[in-house]
Amino acid sequence: MDESGKKKVVIIGAGFGGLQAVKKLSQNKNLDITVIDKKNHHLFQPLLYQVATAVLSPADIAIPTRSLIGERKNVTVVLGEATKVDINSKTVYYQNKSTNYDYLILATGAKSSYFGNDHWEQYTIGLKNLKDALKIRHKLLISFEKAELSGDPEIAKALLNYVIIGGGPTGVELAGSIAELSHQIIRDEFHSIDPALSKITLIEAAPRLLMAFDPSLGEFTKRRLETRGVEVLVGTRVVDIDKQGVHLEGKTIATDTVVWAAGVQANSIAATLGAPIDRSGRVIVDEFCNIEGHPEVFVIGDTASFGKGLERPLPGVSPVAMQQGRYIAALIQNDLKNKRRKGFRYTDKGSMATIGRTDAVAQMGFLRMKGLFGWLAWLFVHLFYQVGFKNKLTILITWVWSYIAFRAEARVIQDEVSATNDKD
Amino acid sequence: MDESGKKKVVIIGAGFGGLQAVKKLSQNKNLDITVIDKKNHHLFQPLLYQVATAVLSPADIAIPTRSLIGERKNVTVVLGEATKVDINSKTVYYQNKSTNYDYLILATGAKSSYFGNDHWEQYTIGLKNLKDALKIRHKLLISFEKAELSGDPEIAKALLNYVIIGGGPTGVELAGSIAELSHQIIRDEFHSIDPALSKITLIEAAPRLLMAFDPSLGEFTKRRLETRGVEVLVGTRVVDIDKQGVHLEGKTIATDTVVWAAGVQANSIAATLGAPIDRSGRVIVDEFCNIEGHPEVFVIGDTASFGKGLERPLPGVSPVAMQQGRYIAALIQNDLKNKRRKGFRYTDKGSMATIGRTDAVAQMGFLRMKGLFGWLAWLFVHLFYQVGFKNKLTILITWVWSYIAFRAEARVIQDEVSATNDKD
Repeated sequence: MDESGKKKVVIIGAGFGGLQAVKKLSQNKNLDITVIDKKNHHLFQPLLYQVATAVLSPADIAIPTRSLIGERKNVTVVLGEATKVDINSKTVYYQNKSTNYDYLILATGAKSSYFGNDHWEQYTIGLKNLKDALKIRHKLLISFEKAELSGDPEIAKALLNYVIIGGGPTGVELAGSIAELSHQIIRDEFHSIDPALSKITLIEAAPRLLMAFDPSLGEFTKRRLETRGVEVLVGTRVVDIDKQGVHLEGKTIATDTVVWAAGVQANSIAATLGAPIDRSGRVIVDEFCNIEGHPEVFVIGDTASFGKGLERPLPGVSPVAMQQGRYIAALIQNDLKNKRRKGFRYTDKGSMATIGRTDAVAQMGFLRMKGLFGWLAWLFVHLFYQVGFKNKLTILITWVWSYIAFRAEARVIQDEVSATNDKD
Repeated sequence: MDESGKKKVVIIGAGFGGLQAVKKLSQNKNLDITVIDKKNHHLFQPLLYQVATAVLSPADIAIPTRSLIGERKNVTVVLGEATKVDINSKTVYYQNKSTNYDYLILATGAKSSYFGNDHWEQYTIGLKNLKDALKIRHKLLISFEKAELSGDPEIAKALLNYVIIGGGPTGVELAGSIAELSHQIIRDEFHSIDPALSKITLIEAAPRLLMAFDPSLGEFTKRRLETRGVEVLVGTRVVDIDKQGVHLEGKTIATDTVVWAAGVQANSIAATLGAPIDRSGRVIVDEFCNIEGHPEVFVIGDTASFGKGLERPLPGVSPVAMQQGRYIAALIQNDLKNKRRKGFRYTDKGSMATIGRTDAVAQMGFLRMKGLFGWLAWLFVHLFYQVGFKNKLTILITWVWSYIAFRAEARVIQDEVSATNDKD
């Protein structure tokens, strides 16, 4: 509580969960809210793959956190990295500073996990933030330019070799989108080599793609990706990744572009709570999203493992984080009125993944959609949830334009090439 | 001439001049055209300052060169740096390769010039390409975040100190745009410091701003910028620039953000022609944009000094480059028909510069416009000349949105801040 008698809420992370919480909490003028994030923007992660394949620009899917919530008088936005929470003194440490809280919401999301093979990180690119997406975009675009400059189909084949590890929605969407870019969109713009020489391999250890979906949709997705020129390897274990490329059992794929979309783990601040964590570093929470003995500490979204009364813990997807964010906001307001707490219940509204233009799979309850109908459902949901009026409109125009004219216009390589420095 | 008997045209640079030339020349199927550029995109430079101040995104003002001309069968686009021209053997060298030509169009534009003070470069940022614009954007955004984190008005005043050197259109537009961002757009989003504490200084050595315009418009611009909170110093010579800031006669402005918008010089490949150059490194050309004794070598735009029959050489502005590009394209086609060459004539359609939202100056012939009417003229012309249908539409929406809602939504800092590495 601060000197004015206001309760102090600290929210770490302005992702899907944190943003929902602050939007709802800030309506209560008796709360003093601080939002700490190491990025200056809220990111619409589900469309990151379209930034990676140069359909969308970073600003299309990222909005400054200040622009979203900074004008609210009872909200302080801090651009900084929170490094430690002391739950006994109720203190959060960030950027050589600290702040106390009456309530803490930890919503710091997840980063890539390499299942104990941390040396793979240096040979792969994740797809968790804008920097990752722009790194993938740069690698893709430069590889085509280098191949064109060589004019040699053999060199082109070696350069245009992309491996994506992880057959969940991210891996599927990126693979389909790279196939579309290289085999269709830019194909006629290169004359000395054929961009369709490129080879895209999608690797999944489980027996099929999209394990969280109905098996029929995983099978459908595999067939469609193959039609689009993606080689799909399911039930395939990655043995090692190094400078040469990706080593499978009895086979090596030579490449220097490997995208890691397989495993995630909670960001490291989660462990500083001192509460029990699962093997992905996620904090195990009770039915109120609390850690044991601390009804003022909430952990939500990808940072939490919520399994109370369920067959298995909730998945790390945005609807879980958003619903939990809103739930905590309501719970805190009830607390202040001394109302009894009710446990969190997740409403599963379904899942979807695009395979390419006019092609997607979606499931909602018993409903299964695929192909054009799945894609229309995907389009509607993604536009609907996209933050901000202007973004919705420019994204819609960009999509309509790029889908009709078959273009990907955000193909900007910011660096100049140089004759003396040929490192890219 | 290549084996098929086609004439070979090499164009170095896909800026305003080069792009106009290739668009027109490529209609002639008997020409084999190669375009070499070290960037992968054509850039609409007049709006770079809006990328620097986070109103527009890079892809709004940059279109992949391949996407513009790559599908034309007789055009080869090369992403590479041309380093040398041998006019005797008619050879262009680039990226460890070379190519011959029947006609050469050198249209490589200009870079910043520090009037013999090359050590100033390390302390300043230019505004010639996307990297420059994003560097300025990053510095601006991070300075506000650091000031907010400090919560100290004295620290804030030191951090929020921006100097722009050069009172031409670029300097004027950037100064006005930074003032708008800090004094208006983001002001309510910061609570621990006031972004309006920022100080923007525009320095010009000549006795007034916008020397290429009618004096009344320069005076008007100065007054309007001052109303908007910009300190305008005309008739002020920069003595030195170093780590401390900008040294004037008898005064030093402490700052670590200095934008250089003062002088330009031709890119260095121009000198490899061996033809006479002026003191800005621009190649002196005759009435056909040729160098002496080489009717097959053309130099246009900012790379050329065209003064034949004129009081002084043509200015380094996009309309000159575009008209020269189209002129050379027509001339080459006439050459092939053995028609007589006619000299280049520049049609001056006027100049304009924005001061801020709904405020600009423009002159066309005897017509002088300022304030809202100047700005409407500016809006119309800039949308009209912007490349590509989709860009026009998204820029229009972005502008309408950001002008009505008073927003600058492209405020994305791509990097995360880190508690241990506080270098930004």
